[in-house]
Amino acid sequence: MAQVERIGISLDKKLLGQFDKMIEQLGYQNRSEAVRDMIRDKLEAKKLENPETTAVAAVCLVYDHHETALSKRLLELQHSKHLQTISTMHIHVDHHNCLEIIALRGKVRDITQTADKIISLRGVKLGKVNMIATEDSHTHSH
Amino acid sequence: MAQVERIGISLDKKLLGQFDKMIEQLGYQNRSEAVRDMIRDKLEAKKLENPETTAVAAVCLVYDHHETALSKRLLELQHSKHLQTISTMHIHVDHHNCLEIIALRGKVRDITQTADKIISLRGVKLGKVNMIATEDSHTHSH
Amino acid sequence: MAQVERIGISLDKKLLGQFDKMIEQLGYQNRSEAVRDMIRDKLEAKKLENPETTAVAAVCLVYDHHETALSKRLLELQHSKHLQTISTMHIHVDHHNCLEIIALRGKVRDITQTADKIISLRGVKLGKVNMIATEDSHTHSH
Amino acid sequence: MAQVERIGISLDKKLLGQFDKMIEQLGYQNRSEAVRDMIRDKLEAKKLENPETTAVAAVCLVYDHHETALSKRLLELQHSKHLQTISTMHIHVDHHNCLEIIALRGKVRDITQTADKIISLRGVKLGKVNMIATEDSHTHSH
Repeated sequence: MAQVERIGISLDKKLLGQFDKMIEQLGYQNRSEAVRDMIRDKLEAKKLENPETTAVAAVCLVYDHHETALSKRLLELQHSKHLQTISTMHIHVDHHNCLEIIALRGKVRDITQTADKIISLRGVKLGKVNMIATEDSHTHSH
Repeated sequence: MAQVERIGISLDKKLLGQFDKMIEQLGYQNRSEAVRDMIRDKLEAKKLENPETTAVAAVCLVYDHHETALSKRLLELQHSKHLQTISTMHIHVDHHNCLEIIALRGKVRDITQTADKIISLRGVKLGKVNMIATEDSHTHSH
Repeated sequence: MAQVERIGISLDKKLLGQFDKMIEQLGYQNRSEAVRDMIRDKLEAKKLENPETTAVAAVCLVYDHHETALSKRLLELQHSKHLQTISTMHIHVDHHNCLEIIALRGKVRDITQTADKIISLRGVKLGKVNMIATEDSHTHSH
Repeated sequence: MAQVERIGISLDKKLLGQFDKMIEQLGYQNRSEAVRDMIRDKLEAKKLENPETTAVAAVCLVYDHHETALSKRLLELQHSKHLQTISTMHIHVDHHNCLEIIALRGKVRDITQTADKIISLRGVKLGKVNMIATEDSHTHSH
Protein backbone atom coordinates (compact mmCIF):
# COMPACT_ATOMS: atom_id res chain seq x y z
CA MET A 1 0.00 0.00 0.00
CA ALA A 2 1.05 3.60 -0.58
CA GLN A 3 2.84 5.33 2.29
CA VAL A 4 0.91 8.29 3.60
CA GLU A 5 2.63 11.45 4.87
CA ARG A 6 1.14 14.40 6.72
CA ILE A 7 2.21 17.97 6.05
CA GLY A 8 1.24 21.23 7.76
CA ILE A 9 -0.09 24.20 5.80
CA SER A 10 -0.53 27.65 7.32
CA LEU A 11 -3.05 30.09 5.96
CA ASP A 12 -5.01 33.00 7.34
CA LYS A 13 -8.35 32.39 9.00
CA LYS A 14 -10.40 34.18 6.37
CA LEU A 15 -8.91 32.23 3.45
CA LEU A 16 -9.43 28.97 5.36
CA GLY A 17 -13.09 29.87 5.93
CA GLN A 18 -13.61 30.52 2.20
CA PHE A 19 -11.81 27.28 1.32
CA ASP A 20 -13.94 25.22 3.71
CA LYS A 21 -17.12 26.72 2.27
CA MET A 22 -16.05 26.08 -1.32
CA ILE A 23 -15.04 22.44 -0.82
CA GLU A 24 -18.26 21.71 1.07
CA GLN A 25 -20.23 23.00 -1.93
CA LEU A 26 -18.10 20.90 -4.28
CA GLY A 27 -18.91 17.84 -2.17
CA TYR A 28 -15.55 17.09 -0.54
CA GLN A 29 -15.55 15.07 2.67
CA ASN A 30 -12.33 16.63 4.00
CA ARG A 31 -9.60 19.16 3.21
CA SER A 32 -6.93 16.57 2.40
CA GLU A 33 -8.92 15.14 -0.51
CA ALA A 34 -9.54 18.66 -1.89
CA VAL A 35 -5.86 19.63 -1.65
CA ARG A 36 -4.79 16.34 -3.23
CA ASP A 37 -7.15 16.96 -6.17
CA MET A 38 -5.75 20.49 -6.67
CA ILE A 39 -2.20 19.12 -6.65
CA ARG A 40 -3.03 16.33 -9.11
CA ASP A 41 -4.81 18.78 -11.44
CA LYS A 42 -1.81 21.09 -11.54
CA LEU A 43 0.71 18.26 -12.01
CA GLU A 44 -1.40 16.84 -14.79
CA ALA A 45 -1.74 20.21 -16.58
CA LYS A 46 2.08 20.57 -16.51
CA LYS A 47 2.53 17.07 -17.97
CA LEU A 48 0.14 17.82 -20.85
CA GLU A 49 2.28 20.82 -21.89
CA ASN A 50 4.84 18.32 -23.15
CA PRO A 51 3.80 16.93 -26.57
CA GLU A 52 5.72 13.70 -25.83
CA THR A 53 3.61 12.84 -22.78
CA THR A 54 1.45 9.74 -23.07
CA ALA A 55 -2.23 10.40 -22.44
CA VAL A 56 -5.66 8.92 -22.77
CA ALA A 57 -8.15 11.11 -24.57
CA ALA A 58 -11.88 11.40 -25.08
CA VAL A 59 -12.56 12.95 -28.47
CA CYS A 60 -16.20 14.09 -28.46
CA LEU A 61 -17.86 14.74 -31.81
CA VAL A 62 -21.27 15.87 -32.94
CA TYR A 63 -21.89 14.83 -36.52
CA ASP A 64 -24.62 14.44 -39.06
CA HIS A 65 -25.15 10.72 -39.61
CA HIS A 66 -26.68 11.37 -43.03
CA GLU A 67 -23.20 12.33 -44.24
CA THR A 68 -22.37 9.12 -46.07
CA ALA A 69 -18.60 9.09 -46.47
CA LEU A 70 -17.95 10.15 -42.88
CA SER A 71 -18.11 6.85 -40.98
CA LYS A 72 -15.55 5.33 -43.30
CA ARG A 73 -13.09 8.23 -42.88
CA LEU A 74 -13.63 8.22 -39.10
CA LEU A 75 -12.69 4.57 -38.90
CA GLU A 76 -9.60 5.07 -41.06
CA LEU A 77 -8.35 7.93 -38.87
CA GLN A 78 -8.82 5.84 -35.73
CA HIS A 79 -6.49 3.27 -37.19
CA SER A 80 -3.49 5.61 -37.20
CA LYS A 81 -0.21 3.81 -36.64
CA HIS A 82 0.70 6.25 -33.84
CA LEU A 83 -2.45 5.87 -31.79
CA GLN A 84 -4.45 3.17 -30.10
CA THR A 85 -8.22 3.52 -30.31
CA ILE A 86 -9.44 1.94 -27.11
CA SER A 87 -13.18 2.15 -27.46
CA THR A 88 -15.97 4.13 -29.07
CA MET A 89 -19.37 5.17 -27.72
CA HIS A 90 -22.11 6.27 -30.10
CA ILE A 91 -25.16 8.19 -28.89
CA HIS A 92 -28.23 9.24 -30.84
CA VAL A 93 -28.94 12.93 -30.09
CA ASP A 94 -31.74 13.85 -32.49
CA HIS A 95 -32.95 13.22 -36.04
CA HIS A 96 -29.86 14.86 -37.55
CA ASN A 97 -27.10 14.55 -35.00
CA CYS A 98 -25.22 11.91 -33.13
CA LEU A 99 -22.56 12.21 -30.45
CA GLU A 100 -19.55 9.97 -30.72
CA ILE A 101 -16.98 9.67 -27.96
CA ILE A 102 -13.73 8.05 -29.07
CA ALA A 103 -11.29 6.96 -26.36
CA LEU A 104 -7.70 7.05 -27.61
CA ARG A 105 -4.29 6.43 -26.09
CA GLY A 106 -1.07 7.93 -27.43
CA LYS A 107 1.28 10.89 -27.24
CA VAL A 108 -0.22 14.34 -26.78
CA ARG A 109 1.22 15.37 -30.16
CA ASP A 110 -0.38 12.47 -32.03
CA ILE A 111 -3.72 12.78 -30.24
CA THR A 112 -3.88 16.47 -31.19
CA GLN A 113 -3.08 15.81 -34.84
CA THR A 114 -5.62 13.02 -35.17
CA ALA A 115 -8.29 15.05 -33.36
CA ASP A 116 -7.65 18.01 -35.72
CA LYS A 117 -8.12 15.72 -38.72
CA ILE A 118 -11.31 14.20 -37.32
CA ILE A 119 -12.84 17.58 -36.46
CA SER A 120 -12.05 18.96 -39.93
CA LEU A 121 -13.99 16.17 -41.68
CA ARG A 122 -17.05 17.27 -43.65
CA GLY A 123 -20.14 16.46 -41.59
CA VAL A 124 -18.43 16.82 -38.20
CA LYS A 125 -20.11 19.89 -36.73
CA LEU A 126 -18.41 20.21 -33.37
CA GLY A 127 -15.49 18.54 -31.74
CA LYS A 128 -13.75 18.75 -28.40
CA VAL A 129 -10.88 16.84 -26.87
CA ASN A 130 -10.21 15.99 -23.24
CA MET A 131 -6.78 14.57 -22.47
CA ILE A 132 -5.60 13.01 -19.23
CA ALA A 133 -1.89 12.31 -18.78
CA THR A 134 -1.37 8.76 -17.59
CA GLU A 135 1.22 7.95 -15.00
CA ASP A 136 4.54 6.68 -16.24
CA SER A 137 4.56 2.96 -15.68
CA HIS A 138 8.17 2.99 -14.41
CA THR A 139 7.15 5.11 -11.42
CA HIS A 140 5.07 2.23 -10.09
CA SER A 141 6.51 -0.20 -7.63
CA HIS A 142 4.24 -3.21 -7.57
CA MET B 1 -32.61 19.45 -47.25
CA ALA B 2 -31.00 22.54 -45.75
CA GLN B 3 -30.88 25.64 -47.97
CA VAL B 4 -27.36 26.74 -48.72
CA GLU B 5 -26.37 30.40 -49.05
CA ARG B 6 -23.12 31.89 -50.27
CA ILE B 7 -21.56 34.98 -48.68
CA GLY B 8 -18.50 37.01 -49.66
CA ILE B 9 -15.71 37.72 -47.18
CA SER B 10 -12.92 40.21 -47.89
CA LEU B 11 -9.56 39.91 -46.22
CA ASP B 12 -6.05 40.96 -47.06
CA LYS B 13 -3.86 38.68 -49.10
CA LYS B 14 -1.37 37.94 -46.34
CA LEU B 15 -4.06 36.88 -43.83
CA LEU B 16 -5.69 34.69 -46.50
CA GLY B 17 -2.35 33.01 -47.17
CA GLN B 18 -1.87 32.23 -43.47
CA PHE B 19 -5.46 30.96 -43.22
CA ASP B 20 -5.06 28.63 -46.21
CA LYS B 21 -1.84 27.21 -44.77
CA MET B 22 -3.41 26.63 -41.33
CA ILE B 23 -6.54 24.88 -42.59
CA GLU B 24 -4.49 22.66 -44.88
CA GLN B 25 -2.45 21.53 -41.86
CA LEU B 26 -5.65 20.92 -39.90
CA GLY B 27 -6.92 18.73 -42.73
CA TYR B 28 -9.75 20.84 -44.16
CA GLN B 29 -10.82 20.18 -47.76
CA ASN B 30 -11.99 23.76 -48.36
CA ARG B 31 -12.38 27.19 -46.75
CA SER B 32 -16.14 26.97 -46.32
CA GLU B 33 -15.91 23.94 -44.04
CA ALA B 34 -13.22 25.66 -41.92
CA VAL B 35 -15.25 28.88 -41.57
CA ARG B 36 -18.40 26.90 -40.72
CA ASP B 37 -16.51 25.07 -37.96
CA MET B 38 -15.22 28.36 -36.50
CA ILE B 39 -18.75 29.79 -36.52
CA ARG B 40 -20.24 26.68 -34.87
CA ASP B 41 -17.50 26.66 -32.21
CA LYS B 42 -18.16 30.28 -31.29
CA LEU B 43 -21.97 29.88 -31.27
CA GLU B 44 -21.63 26.81 -29.10
CA ALA B 45 -19.29 28.53 -26.61
CA LYS B 46 -21.84 31.35 -26.24
CA LYS B 47 -24.67 28.86 -25.59
CA LEU B 48 -22.67 27.10 -22.86
CA GLU B 49 -22.32 30.39 -20.95
CA ASN B 50 -26.00 30.06 -20.08
CA PRO B 51 -26.50 27.58 -17.19
CA GLU B 52 -30.01 26.77 -18.49
CA THR B 53 -28.74 25.46 -21.84
CA THR B 54 -29.27 21.76 -22.48
CA ALA B 55 -26.07 19.91 -23.27
CA VAL B 56 -24.57 16.48 -23.61
CA ALA B 57 -21.42 15.94 -21.60
CA ALA B 58 -18.53 13.52 -21.38
CA VAL B 59 -17.30 13.35 -17.80
CA CYS B 60 -13.85 11.72 -17.88
CA LEU B 61 -12.51 10.26 -14.64
CA VAL B 62 -9.35 8.51 -13.59
CA TYR B 63 -9.93 6.52 -10.44
CA ASP B 64 -8.43 3.83 -8.34
CA HIS B 65 -10.60 0.75 -8.71
CA HIS B 66 -9.33 -0.63 -5.40
CA GLU B 67 -11.36 2.08 -3.67
CA THR B 68 -14.29 -0.04 -2.57
CA ALA B 69 -17.12 2.39 -1.86
CA LEU B 70 -16.56 4.39 -5.01
CA SER B 71 -18.48 2.41 -7.64
CA LYS B 72 -21.61 2.52 -5.51
CA ARG B 73 -21.42 6.30 -5.02
CA LEU B 74 -20.68 6.83 -8.71
CA LEU B 75 -23.80 4.95 -9.68
CA GLU B 76 -25.93 6.87 -7.19
CA LEU B 77 -24.73 10.22 -8.54
CA GLN B 78 -25.50 9.18 -12.10
CA HIS B 79 -29.08 8.58 -11.09
CA SER B 80 -29.71 12.22 -10.23
CA LYS B 81 -33.28 13.30 -10.89
CA HIS B 82 -32.06 16.28 -12.94
CA LEU B 83 -29.81 14.39 -15.30
CA GLN B 84 -29.99 11.53 -17.73
CA THR B 85 -26.99 9.21 -17.81
CA ILE B 86 -26.87 8.03 -21.40
CA SER B 87 -24.01 5.59 -21.35
CA THR B 88 -20.77 4.73 -19.59
CA MET B 89 -17.45 3.48 -20.96
CA HIS B 90 -14.93 1.86 -18.66
CA ILE B 91 -11.27 1.45 -19.66
CA HIS B 92 -8.49 -0.32 -17.83
CA VAL B 93 -5.43 1.97 -17.75
CA ASP B 94 -2.98 0.18 -15.47
CA HIS B 95 -2.83 -1.92 -12.30
CA HIS B 96 -4.15 0.95 -10.16
CA ASN B 97 -6.16 3.18 -12.45
CA CYS B 98 -9.14 3.03 -14.70
CA LEU B 99 -10.63 5.66 -16.98
CA GLU B 100 -14.37 6.03 -16.96
CA ILE B 101 -16.21 8.20 -19.47
CA ILE B 102 -19.78 8.99 -18.47
CA ALA B 103 -22.06 10.49 -21.13
CA LEU B 104 -24.75 12.67 -19.56
CA ARG B 105 -27.54 14.87 -20.85
CA GLY B 106 -29.03 17.78 -18.92
CA LYS B 107 -28.77 21.47 -18.19
CA VAL B 108 -25.29 23.00 -17.97
CA ARG B 109 -25.96 23.90 -14.32
CA ASP B 110 -26.92 20.34 -13.34
CA ILE B 111 -24.08 18.75 -15.30
CA THR B 112 -21.58 21.03 -13.55
CA GLN B 113 -22.96 20.23 -10.10
CA THR B 114 -22.98 16.49 -10.66
CA ALA B 115 -19.49 16.56 -12.19
CA ASP B 116 -18.20 18.51 -9.15
CA LYS B 117 -19.66 15.88 -6.84
CA ILE B 118 -18.21 13.00 -8.85
CA ILE B 119 -14.74 14.55 -9.03
CA SER B 120 -14.72 15.23 -5.28
CA LEU B 121 -15.33 11.56 -4.42
CA ARG B 122 -12.54 9.83 -2.54
CA GLY B 123 -10.61 7.66 -4.99
CA VAL B 124 -11.29 9.85 -8.03
CA LYS B 125 -7.86 11.22 -8.87
CA LEU B 126 -8.57 13.38 -11.90
CA GLY B 127 -11.70 14.54 -13.61
CA LYS B 128 -12.53 16.66 -16.63
CA VAL B 129 -15.78 17.59 -18.29
CA ASN B 130 -16.50 18.31 -21.95
CA MET B 131 -19.91 19.78 -22.70
CA ILE B 132 -21.53 20.24 -26.09
CA ALA B 133 -24.70 22.33 -26.34
CA THR B 134 -27.36 20.48 -28.28
CA GLU B 135 -29.58 22.25 -30.75
CA ASP B 136 -33.00 23.29 -29.58
CA SER B 137 -35.46 20.76 -30.90
CA HIS B 138 -37.95 23.48 -31.93
CA THR B 139 -35.50 24.86 -34.49
CA HIS B 140 -35.76 21.68 -36.51
CA SER B 141 -38.21 21.33 -39.33
CA HIS B 142 -38.47 17.67 -40.20
CA MET C 1 -2.96 41.60 11.36
CA ALA C 2 -4.60 38.53 9.87
CA GLN C 3 -4.92 35.49 12.16
CA VAL C 4 -2.98 32.51 10.86
CA GLU C 5 -4.19 28.93 11.28
CA ARG C 6 -2.37 25.70 10.60
CA ILE C 7 -4.08 22.67 9.06
CA GLY C 8 -2.80 19.15 8.40
CA ILE C 9 -3.02 17.55 4.97
CA SER C 10 -2.33 13.87 4.37
CA LEU C 11 -1.18 12.60 0.99
CA ASP C 12 0.82 9.67 -0.24
CA LYS C 13 4.58 9.91 -0.42
CA LYS C 14 4.78 9.73 -4.20
CA LEU C 15 2.29 12.56 -4.77
CA LEU C 16 4.11 14.68 -2.17
CA GLY C 17 7.40 14.10 -3.99
CA GLN C 18 5.89 15.23 -7.31
CA PHE C 19 4.32 18.26 -5.62
CA ASP C 20 7.62 19.32 -4.01
CA LYS C 21 9.42 19.02 -7.35
CA MET C 22 6.77 21.05 -9.20
CA ILE C 23 6.64 23.91 -6.72
CA GLU C 24 10.41 24.14 -6.62
CA GLN C 25 10.42 24.57 -10.40
CA LEU C 26 7.69 27.21 -10.14
CA GLY C 27 9.84 29.11 -7.65
CA TYR C 28 7.89 28.62 -4.41
CA GLN C 29 9.76 29.00 -1.12
CA ASN C 30 7.47 26.62 0.79
CA ARG C 31 4.44 24.36 0.48
CA SER C 32 2.07 26.69 2.33
CA GLU C 33 2.47 29.50 -0.18
CA ALA C 34 1.88 27.06 -3.08
CA VAL C 35 -1.28 25.62 -1.47
CA ARG C 36 -2.58 29.11 -0.65
CA ASP C 37 -2.11 30.14 -4.30
CA MET C 38 -4.01 27.06 -5.52
CA ILE C 39 -6.86 27.81 -3.10
CA ARG C 40 -7.02 31.48 -4.12
CA ASP C 41 -7.00 30.56 -7.84
CA LYS C 42 -9.90 28.16 -7.41
CA LEU C 43 -11.93 30.55 -5.23
CA GLU C 44 -11.35 33.32 -7.74
CA ALA C 45 -12.40 31.17 -10.71
CA LYS C 46 -15.66 30.33 -8.90
CA LYS C 47 -16.34 34.04 -8.23
CA LEU C 48 -15.84 34.94 -11.89
CA GLU C 49 -18.58 32.47 -12.91
CA ASN C 50 -21.08 34.92 -11.45
CA PRO C 51 -21.74 37.81 -13.88
CA GLU C 52 -22.58 40.12 -10.94
CA THR C 53 -19.11 39.78 -9.37
CA THR C 54 -17.03 42.95 -9.31
CA ALA C 55 -13.66 42.55 -10.99
CA VAL C 56 -10.71 44.45 -12.32
CA ALA C 57 -9.77 43.59 -15.89
CA ALA C 58 -6.88 44.02 -18.26
CA VAL C 59 -8.21 44.23 -21.81
CA CYS C 60 -5.24 43.66 -24.14
CA LEU C 61 -5.60 44.78 -27.75
CA VAL C 62 -3.41 44.69 -30.80
CA TYR C 63 -4.55 47.29 -33.31
CA ASP C 64 -3.43 49.09 -36.40
CA HIS C 65 -2.82 52.72 -35.46
CA HIS C 66 -3.30 53.81 -39.05
CA GLU C 67 -7.00 53.06 -38.62
CA THR C 68 -8.22 56.62 -38.13
CA ALA C 69 -11.64 56.34 -36.52
CA LEU C 70 -10.53 53.75 -33.99
CA SER C 71 -9.00 55.87 -31.21
CA LYS C 72 -12.17 57.92 -30.96
CA ARG C 73 -14.42 54.84 -30.70
CA LEU C 74 -12.07 53.24 -28.16
CA LEU C 75 -12.30 56.27 -25.92
CA GLU C 76 -16.09 56.39 -26.19
CA LEU C 77 -16.41 52.73 -25.19
CA GLN C 78 -14.16 53.25 -22.18
CA HIS C 79 -16.56 55.90 -20.94
CA SER C 80 -19.43 53.46 -20.45
CA LYS C 81 -21.70 54.39 -17.60
CA HIS C 82 -21.38 50.89 -16.12
CA LEU C 83 -17.61 50.71 -16.04
CA GLN C 84 -14.70 52.63 -14.63
CA THR C 85 -11.63 52.87 -16.84
CA ILE C 86 -8.77 53.03 -14.38
CA SER C 87 -5.79 53.47 -16.62
CA THR C 88 -4.47 52.76 -20.10
CA MET C 89 -1.03 51.68 -21.26
CA HIS C 90 -0.01 52.10 -24.89
CA ILE C 91 2.93 50.22 -26.38
CA HIS C 92 4.45 50.53 -29.83
CA VAL C 93 4.95 47.02 -31.27
CA ASP C 94 6.03 47.63 -34.88
CA HIS C 95 5.34 49.88 -37.85
CA HIS C 96 1.74 48.70 -38.12
CA ASN C 97 0.70 47.53 -34.71
CA CYS C 98 0.38 48.81 -31.19
CA LEU C 99 -0.59 47.02 -28.00
CA GLU C 100 -3.00 48.77 -25.70
CA ILE C 101 -3.76 47.49 -22.21
CA ILE C 102 -6.88 48.99 -20.69
CA ALA C 103 -7.46 48.46 -16.96
CA LEU C 104 -11.17 48.48 -16.12
CA ARG C 105 -13.23 47.94 -13.00
CA GLY C 106 -16.85 46.80 -13.04
CA LYS C 107 -19.14 43.79 -12.99
CA VAL C 108 -18.07 40.70 -14.93
CA ARG C 109 -21.14 41.09 -17.15
CA ASP C 110 -20.34 44.70 -18.09
CA ILE C 111 -16.62 44.05 -18.59
CA THR C 112 -17.45 41.20 -20.98
CA GLN C 113 -19.89 43.31 -22.99
CA THR C 114 -17.53 46.25 -23.30
CA ALA C 115 -14.60 43.98 -24.19
CA ASP C 116 -16.72 42.32 -26.92
CA LYS C 117 -17.52 45.73 -28.38
CA ILE C 118 -13.90 46.86 -28.29
CA ILE C 119 -12.60 43.67 -29.91
CA SER C 120 -15.21 43.87 -32.70
CA LEU C 121 -14.06 47.37 -33.74
CA ARG C 122 -12.60 47.63 -37.22
CA GLY C 123 -8.81 47.86 -36.90
CA VAL C 124 -8.61 45.82 -33.69
CA LYS C 125 -6.83 42.66 -34.81
CA LEU C 126 -6.62 40.67 -31.60
CA GLY C 127 -8.08 41.08 -28.16
CA LYS C 128 -7.90 39.19 -24.90
CA VAL C 129 -9.33 39.86 -21.48
CA ASN C 130 -7.97 38.92 -18.07
CA MET C 131 -10.32 39.41 -15.15
CA ILE C 132 -9.50 39.23 -11.46
CA ALA C 133 -12.36 39.20 -8.95
CA THR C 134 -11.74 41.77 -6.23
CA GLU C 135 -12.55 41.02 -2.63
CA ASP C 136 -15.84 42.30 -1.32
CA SER C 137 -15.09 45.43 0.66
CA HIS C 138 -17.47 44.39 3.45
CA THR C 139 -15.29 41.41 4.30
CA HIS C 140 -12.50 43.75 5.35
CA SER C 141 -12.09 44.84 8.91
CA HIS C 142 -9.85 47.88 8.90
CA MET D 1 -1.33 49.31 -48.72
CA ALA D 2 -2.37 45.69 -48.16
CA GLN D 3 -3.98 43.91 -51.11
CA VAL D 4 -7.52 42.82 -50.38
CA GLU D 5 -9.01 39.60 -51.75
CA ARG D 6 -12.59 38.38 -51.68
CA ILE D 7 -13.51 34.75 -51.06
CA GLY D 8 -16.87 32.98 -51.14
CA ILE D 9 -18.11 30.90 -48.21
CA SER D 10 -21.16 28.64 -48.44
CA LEU D 11 -23.16 27.73 -45.36
CA ASP D 12 -26.71 26.72 -44.67
CA LYS D 13 -29.34 29.37 -44.09
CA LYS D 14 -29.96 28.48 -40.46
CA LEU D 15 -26.27 28.65 -39.48
CA LEU D 16 -25.95 31.98 -41.31
CA GLY D 17 -28.93 33.36 -39.38
CA GLN D 18 -27.36 32.35 -36.05
CA PHE D 19 -24.01 33.83 -37.11
CA ASP D 20 -25.56 37.16 -38.10
CA LYS D 21 -27.40 37.38 -34.78
CA MET D 22 -24.26 36.59 -32.76
CA ILE D 23 -22.00 39.10 -34.50
CA GLU D 24 -24.62 41.82 -34.19
CA GLN D 25 -24.69 41.23 -30.42
CA LEU D 26 -20.89 41.31 -30.31
CA GLY D 27 -20.95 44.68 -32.09
CA TYR D 28 -19.55 43.79 -35.51
CA GLN D 29 -20.36 46.09 -38.44
CA ASN D 30 -20.09 43.34 -41.06
CA ARG D 31 -19.41 39.63 -41.57
CA SER D 32 -15.93 40.11 -43.04
CA GLU D 33 -14.59 41.76 -39.90
CA ALA D 34 -16.05 38.96 -37.73
CA VAL D 35 -14.55 36.21 -39.92
CA ARG D 36 -11.17 37.98 -40.01
CA ASP D 37 -11.17 38.14 -36.19
CA MET D 38 -11.96 34.43 -35.92
CA ILE D 39 -9.14 33.61 -38.34
CA ARG D 40 -6.63 35.82 -36.49
CA ASP D 41 -7.63 34.32 -33.12
CA LYS D 42 -7.08 30.78 -34.38
CA LEU D 43 -3.76 31.61 -36.09
CA GLU D 44 -2.57 33.34 -32.95
CA ALA D 45 -3.54 30.42 -30.69
CA LYS D 46 -1.54 28.07 -32.94
CA LYS D 47 1.53 30.36 -32.78
CA LEU D 48 1.41 30.47 -28.98
CA GLU D 49 1.65 26.66 -28.83
CA ASN D 50 5.28 27.02 -29.90
CA PRO D 51 7.48 28.02 -26.90
CA GLU D 52 9.93 29.75 -29.27
CA THR D 53 7.33 32.23 -30.56
CA THR D 54 7.94 35.87 -29.68
CA ALA D 55 5.04 37.46 -27.84
CA VAL D 56 4.03 40.47 -25.81
CA ALA D 57 2.43 39.67 -22.48
CA ALA D 58 0.39 41.35 -19.81
CA VAL D 59 1.17 39.77 -16.45
CA CYS D 60 -1.60 40.82 -14.06
CA LEU D 61 -0.92 40.52 -10.33
CA VAL D 62 -2.88 41.22 -7.19
CA TYR D 63 -0.54 41.68 -4.27
CA ASP D 64 -0.42 42.97 -0.76
CA HIS D 65 1.65 46.15 -0.77
CA HIS D 66 2.41 45.75 2.92
CA GLU D 67 4.65 42.84 1.98
CA THR D 68 7.99 44.60 2.24
CA ALA D 69 10.46 42.49 0.30
CA LEU D 70 8.14 42.01 -2.64
CA SER D 71 8.72 45.17 -4.70
CA LYS D 72 12.43 44.55 -4.74
CA ARG D 73 12.03 40.93 -5.93
CA LEU D 74 9.47 41.99 -8.54
CA LEU D 75 11.90 44.49 -10.02
CA GLU D 76 14.73 41.94 -10.08
CA LEU D 77 12.59 39.41 -11.95
CA GLN D 78 11.58 41.99 -14.53
CA HIS D 79 15.24 42.54 -15.32
CA SER D 80 15.74 39.01 -16.60
CA LYS D 81 18.30 38.79 -19.36
CA HIS D 82 15.84 36.90 -21.59
CA LEU D 83 12.96 39.33 -21.37
CA GLN D 84 12.27 42.97 -22.02
CA THR D 85 9.96 44.69 -19.55
CA ILE D 86 8.20 47.30 -21.62
CA SER D 87 6.10 49.09 -19.07
CA THR D 88 4.33 48.66 -15.75
CA MET D 89 0.97 49.96 -14.55
CA HIS D 90 0.18 50.08 -10.84
CA ILE D 91 -3.39 50.40 -9.58
CA HIS D 92 -4.62 50.85 -6.03
CA VAL D 93 -7.48 48.38 -5.43
CA ASP D 94 -8.22 48.68 -1.72
CA HIS D 95 -6.46 49.12 1.62
CA HIS D 96 -4.63 45.80 1.28
CA ASN D 97 -4.34 45.07 -2.39
CA CYS D 98 -2.92 46.58 -5.50
CA LEU D 99 -3.11 45.41 -9.10
CA GLU D 100 0.04 45.53 -11.14
CA ILE D 101 0.06 44.94 -14.88
CA ILE D 102 3.50 44.25 -16.30
CA ALA D 103 3.92 44.38 -20.08
CA LEU D 104 6.72 42.08 -21.22
CA ARG D 105 8.17 41.05 -24.57
CA GLY D 106 10.04 37.80 -25.15
CA LYS D 107 9.70 34.17 -26.12
CA VAL D 108 6.65 32.27 -24.87
CA ARG D 109 8.95 29.95 -22.90
CA ASP D 110 10.72 32.80 -21.09
CA ILE D 111 7.51 34.73 -20.40
CA THR D 112 5.97 31.62 -18.83
CA GLN D 113 8.98 30.97 -16.62
CA THR D 114 9.21 34.55 -15.40
CA ALA D 115 5.46 34.74 -14.81
CA ASP D 116 5.62 31.50 -12.76
CA LYS D 117 8.37 33.00 -10.61
CA ILE D 118 6.50 36.25 -10.10
CA ILE D 119 3.25 34.52 -9.16
CA SER D 120 5.03 32.25 -6.67
CA LEU D 121 6.45 35.22 -4.72
CA ARG D 122 5.23 35.58 -1.16
CA GLY D 123 2.63 38.35 -1.06
CA VAL D 124 1.41 37.81 -4.63
CA LYS D 125 -2.13 36.55 -4.12
CA LEU D 126 -3.32 36.05 -7.68
CA GLY D 127 -1.65 36.15 -11.04
CA LYS D 128 -2.74 35.72 -14.62
CA VAL D 129 -0.92 36.02 -17.92
CA ASN D 130 -2.24 37.09 -21.31
CA MET D 131 0.08 36.54 -24.24
CA ILE D 132 -0.29 37.83 -27.77
CA ALA D 133 2.01 36.49 -30.47
CA THR D 134 3.54 39.33 -32.45
CA GLU D 135 3.99 39.11 -36.18
CA ASP D 136 7.38 38.13 -37.45
CA SER D 137 9.10 41.29 -38.60
CA HIS D 138 10.41 39.58 -41.74
CA THR D 139 6.87 39.11 -43.03
CA HIS D 140 6.45 42.87 -43.27
CA SER D 141 7.12 44.68 -46.51
CA HIS D 142 7.42 48.34 -45.68
